[in-house]
Amino acid sequence: MSNNKNSAHLSRRNFLKFTGAATATSGLALAGLGVSTAEATTVSVPKKWDEIYDVVVVGSGFAGLSAAIEAKLAGANVIVLEKMPVLGGNSSINGGGMAVMGSDIQKTQGVKDSVDLMLDDMFKAGLGLNYPVQARMVAERSNEAFEWCRDYLGVKFKDTLAHFGGHSVPRTHTTTIQSGSGFVDPMIAKCEELGVKIEKKIYVKRLIVDDNRVVGLEIIPKYREGKENSTDVKFLKANKGVVMAAGGFAADVLYRTTQDPRLGSELDTTNHKGATAECLKELIRVGGNPVQLSWIQLGPWASPDEKGFGLAPIFAGYAAYPHGIMVDPETGKRFVNELADRKIRADAIIKTGHPAICIVDEVGMQPAKHVVGKLLERNVVHKFDTIKELAEFYKIPYAELEAQVKRYNDFVSNNQDPEFGKPLEMGQKSMATAPFYAARFWPKAHHTMGGIEIDTESRVINIETRQPIPGLFAAGEITGGTHGACRLGTVAIPDCIVFGRIAGTMAAKA
Amino acid sequence: MSNNKNSAHLSRRNFLKFTGAATATSGLALAGLGVSTAEATTVSVPKKWDEIYDVVVVGSGFAGLSAAIEAKLAGANVIVLEKMPVLGGNSSINGGGMAVMGSDIQKTQGVKDSVDLMLDDMFKAGLGLNYPVQARMVAERSNEAFEWCRDYLGVKFKDTLAHFGGHSVPRTHTTTIQSGSGFVDPMIAKCEELGVKIEKKIYVKRLIVDDNRVVGLEIIPKYREGKENSTDVKFLKANKGVVMAAGGFAADVLYRTTQDPRLGSELDTTNHKGATAECLKELIRVGGNPVQLSWIQLGPWASPDEKGFGLAPIFAGYAAYPHGIMVDPETGKRFVNELADRKIRADAIIKTGHPAICIVDEVGMQPAKHVVGKLLERNVVHKFDTIKELAEFYKIPYAELEAQVKRYNDFVSNNQDPEFGKPLEMGQKSMATAPFYAARFWPKAHHTMGGIEIDTESRVINIETRQPIPGLFAAGEITGGTHGACRLGTVAIPDCIVFGRIAGTMAAKA
Repeated sequence: MSNNKNSAHLSRRNFLKFTGAATATSGLALAGLGVSTAEATTVSVPKKWDEIYDVVVVGSGFAGLSAAIEAKLAGANVIVLEKMPVLGGNSSINGGGMAVMGSDIQKTQGVKDSVDLMLDDMFKAGLGLNYPVQARMVAERSNEAFEWCRDYLGVKFKDTLAHFGGHSVPRTHTTTIQSGSGFVDPMIAKCEELGVKIEKKIYVKRLIVDDNRVVGLEIIPKYREGKENSTDVKFLKANKGVVMAAGGFAADVLYRTTQDPRLGSELDTTNHKGATAECLKELIRVGGNPVQLSWIQLGPWASPDEKGFGLAPIFAGYAAYPHGIMVDPETGKRFVNELADRKIRADAIIKTGHPAICIVDEVGMQPAKHVVGKLLERNVVHKFDTIKELAEFYKIPYAELEAQVKRYNDFVSNNQDPEFGKPLEMGQKSMATAPFYAARFWPKAHHTMGGIEIDTESRVINIETRQPIPGLFAAGEITGGTHGACRLGTVAIPDCIVFGRIAGTMAAKA
Repeated sequence: MSNNKNSAHLSRRNFLKFTGAATATSGLALAGLGVSTAEATTVSVPKKWDEIYDVVVVGSGFAGLSAAIEAKLAGANVIVLEKMPVLGGNSSINGGGMAVMGSDIQKTQGVKDSVDLMLDDMFKAGLGLNYPVQARMVAERSNEAFEWCRDYLGVKFKDTLAHFGGHSVPRTHTTTIQSGSGFVDPMIAKCEELGVKIEKKIYVKRLIVDDNRVVGLEIIPKYREGKENSTDVKFLKANKGVVMAAGGFAADVLYRTTQDPRLGSELDTTNHKGATAECLKELIRVGGNPVQLSWIQLGPWASPDEKGFGLAPIFAGYAAYPHGIMVDPETGKRFVNELADRKIRADAIIKTGHPAICIVDEVGMQPAKHVVGKLLERNVVHKFDTIKELAEFYKIPYAELEAQVKRYNDFVSNNQDPEFGKPLEMGQKSMATAPFYAARFWPKAHHTMGGIEIDTESRVINIETRQPIPGLFAAGEITGGTHGACRLGTVAIPDCIVFGRIAGTMAAKA
């Protein structure tokens, strides 16, 4: 009888044909992944608490910082715990785009949007698996969250909108620095201004439950990778509530593989390396209901020519996808609506078996022009004087590619793409102005849609009793439901901020 | 702030257009679903055990009974606990089809099959999410399981094969009585012969863990629905192991809705009403890893004109799907390969927005002829002398339907379906012999692919340590991984028997 005791259910398929086949025998080394071999144990309430707060927030991304600010504003004594040596997690390294319905910018630019339209887009991408009430709340409150960021926190936004894949209309509002740190930095500044304590390198080992109420945490201070079993611990009391906003698990290869065996270590992730599942597991351990965990999103705008999130997503999301075309280098032809949702695009690229090539001209490049220098330097994006040179470089059949560009330009002239249905009413221009820019794209694990179930007040629901677990709240990527099967691009930020703020307010009142 | 404290995340979409729209306000009454409002509590080891066994098996379906027989044969003192007043659960009410690769029947009939071919079919349906090692074990050992059933247990099989949807070749071996009870009854007889104790109306309240080992269970004897919180309990010790084979949760509306909000109470299920999630939740509570829970299969061969599993699946699976056609009554046209996997067919029917009509002639009806009397009596299947009468009855445009039948008959003559790729090399005949039989089809919740993670020795894996939980085994529908996103029809039985037998053997040795 064979024995796969590591339970790394890796794919026997050539899921990643171009990076080399994953095989059933390529099992992940347990030790190499820092996996504990200690048995799960229950932590009882300590005789003495090392520190006492009203609200303890775990995670310093969009959701955690939003929760901390609101909890503090509601009068609570608040601490934010961050596992990594830097603040912000994935929130700091994303592209800084926020989907907002009904902003003054949308109105100024004459964009006709509505809650139902945004919800329809979210449901279409989510394959109808979205939690309807939560999803609607995100759409309804996205503008309130946007105005809170801009007017209260001082987040600086561009005055133009971007049209992201899967959205029916332009509704992505982006920070001027085109990075999530454009939110995180003002949030940290606000925390400091308000007197919220923030501590880095804190590993949450256990939630502490007393008489069915979460009352605090056992933590490892001065944490560094590999020290998950340290016995040098502290006990933090949370008089009112704990807010779990620790993010997703797309970088946790072993755990994500149990939910989707195709996503082994051969597949890169856009996430920082701290995006692992230990806090989610802890929520499950204390009775939370894990939902929709096997829906793990691959970002279709990631480059195999740089590690992690990188800068290619900005090139793709703001320039090449809306204003250019994506072709299969074998055929020279487009094969998908470049503004379809992430799942459709990622699936389409994977189906070709090799990276796709995205192409945009000088005019279309403008919204991402500020990053092009770095992208050229890193050999992620290449620049060409002619389409012919570009075709030769990427070994694309030139005649087919030229015909495809002409065909696409005709679509742009008619404001209509009868072939793939790409929305072309956002002022796209014909691709005709040299130089031309191009890059290779292959999906990376990006977002874990599933997570712990919460209610509309960000309270963690007990899997058995269906009642909220007293003292326990969650928000952001660690929760499941809002996005269903596939999160629409730039809806993470309103989700994190809307439910992060609710979690903070509720925790302070708990 | 709105409050959906019941957390019944029901769809706002008209998912079931023809049965009436589900609305966001149609929240499920908590009390009506027998949901406990007690908080989760940990059961400590009792001072005195009421009964002591070597192996306690929970569930009396294919997996549980297979485990019990093997555990007994390995020398253990075994009890089987069944929650319901009747034995067999869903196993007793299914169609009795078992996918087997490499049987002597396949060889006699010249069917060219292989492990890789079966595995390819399973992976195709499973969208590549199948656990590769476990899936392969099912294919590899299906014939050993078949011979064990036939030659050791005395299960009576037909000497013909059926070609089920999603399978490349005919490999479904069916009991002569065309019911899963054709397996369950001989299994029960074998248990009695061997001296395995079987008790009905036993509700498992808690697994009891001592020093990280599962050592027994707290149960409610003489259970009946609604008595889940009874304090009239007993403690059963399991000296060697507990085998959890309690089945899936497709009948658990509230729980399935948290994983897939579209599957509210408007959607019928093929499952018996005991197919609920409490044992799965208990496995999660003691540290098991829940995987792929949001993949819930809808059976495309279910009739809205009878409750539950019914007999329509036999009509569809053995007669109408392989030997007839399925049409959209609005257009009179076929719209999907009638032998595609369940997800493809269910999705295709739902997309039309109304029940599909399956049609077969007298010749094609033969493999399901023994159930036609009951189906006609129940007004599930109707009989017609001509296609014209049939078209009038179901309000199908007659000219289109007649053209479609002719077109399909041409495909049959050529052994090839260029339109939908239905396999036509299994001796199908032209549909030309009156009378004609037809029925309506609309999907029902059928199988929960996800469940608790086990290893190849049926040991339940701890979510945190990645090590097996001592004393705890699981098999069958309560486990996840083998089937990925979508279980191929009739692969449940080999999965249950292969891993049930392993679980029993391993538990007796534990």
